[in-house]
Amino acid sequence: MSEPQPNILEALDAILAERRNASPESSYVASLHARGLNKILEKVGEECTETLIAAKDAASTGEHRELISETADLWFHTLVMLSHLGENADAVLTELARRFNTSGLVEKASRDKQ
Amino acid sequence: MSEPQPNILEALDAILAERRNASPESSYVASLHARGLNKILEKVGEECTETLIAAKDAASTGEHRELISETADLWFHTLVMLSHLGENADAVLTELARRFNTSGLVEKASRDKQ
Amino acid sequence: MSEPQPNILEALDAILAERRNASPESSYVASLHARGLNKILEKVGEECTETLIAAKDAASTGEHRELISETADLWFHTLVMLSHLGENADAVLTELARRFNTSGLVEKASRDKQ
Amino acid sequence: MSEPQPNILEALDAILAERRNASPESSYVASLHARGLNKILEKVGEECTETLIAAKDAASTGEHRELISETADLWFHTLVMLSHLGENADAVLTELARRFNTSGLVEKASRDKQ
Repeated sequence: MSEPQPNILEALDAILAERRNASPESSYVASLHARGLNKILEKVGEECTETLIAAKDAASTGEHRELISETADLWFHTLVMLSHLGENADAVLTELARRFNTSGLVEKASRDKQ
Repeated sequence: MSEPQPNILEALDAILAERRNASPESSYVASLHARGLNKILEKVGEECTETLIAAKDAASTGEHRELISETADLWFHTLVMLSHLGENADAVLTELARRFNTSGLVEKASRDKQ
Repeated sequence: MSEPQPNILEALDAILAERRNASPESSYVASLHARGLNKILEKVGEECTETLIAAKDAASTGEHRELISETADLWFHTLVMLSHLGENADAVLTELARRFNTSGLVEKASRDKQ
Repeated sequence: MSEPQPNILEALDAILAERRNASPESSYVASLHARGLNKILEKVGEECTETLIAAKDAASTGEHRELISETADLWFHTLVMLSHLGENADAVLTELARRFNTSGLVEKASRDKQ
């Protein structure tokens, strides 16, 4: 199994903020921003559909590669959406932490690893 | 602004794994698992729709609360989906790291904070 | 096989127009209108997700009942959406006819039945 | 206002049945069938997302062209999905008629036009 990747969303927040105002030719993300919110939301909806289909296929075949890849696409495009509207992953993770009151659980998870 | 929340998804992976086989009465997550994959996927699709609507409203009103809340719901239900199929957030984060080759970027982000 | 049902959408247009301004307690449709566009769009998205899941299940099992039922739900909620915004099925059918230039084809289909 | 188009879905059923087994190069519909159910479902999900976005935009701007066009796309791709699985619009219209018990209503609508 792979190592946990705790700082990737934070790193992606930084990458996405940087590309928010780059020239549309410079990257896929910059081109999405140039095409506007509706285009970004279309991509979110598209990746959600592909995730649902991949989940049904994963359940029949036991093959998970597509499921992971499509879920990554879905999360990624929600990050672009958040960035387009001046938000980022951190706001969503803070909301999740608030709901699950995970501050204690984070500590526990850290201790378990030692 | 809030502090970054790097370990929340890891903590949620642990919570969700624990609730995967709990009795359906014990929690919302356990009840979703008991109702099966289709029900979980319906929730993913539903939360995606609500995220799209919230993004359109955020763009008109400048109010982001719903957007963050619905995106959190969407991510959360994708985590339940992954858990139901024997996967977790870590697999998706690893895939995102691979695509963005963020190992160096994670280091840079850490350095920038010092 | 059942008889073709050519006038159902026209009949539904009339029913939906009538219920557009009815009291919210009087019918499901009236209650959707009272809850507003976002609620109606959530239902459209929800029924679309359920249609996708039903299509995947129909392909594995050969059982089509859910597929037909969920597609009917999806079409129905798009009709409520159209009605909420002052449109109806006729506008969509006219657009489809324009694209497929079906005027001749409709005639041909009618002739074939004789 | 345009004339009602009662027989378009019936005409489309016939067109789609004909293209179901045509060579993939011969038409867009034939190419969708050749690419398989997942591709067709991706299109349904995509068009649903575009319909939701168009509905939000129609509500702000009062401009309905996109709304009608995207709803037509959505219905059309659900017809391709039905055709791919051996079903057609008639089955869905029959189900809608059953639910709304529109036989009487269809008669009434016809009388009202005279």
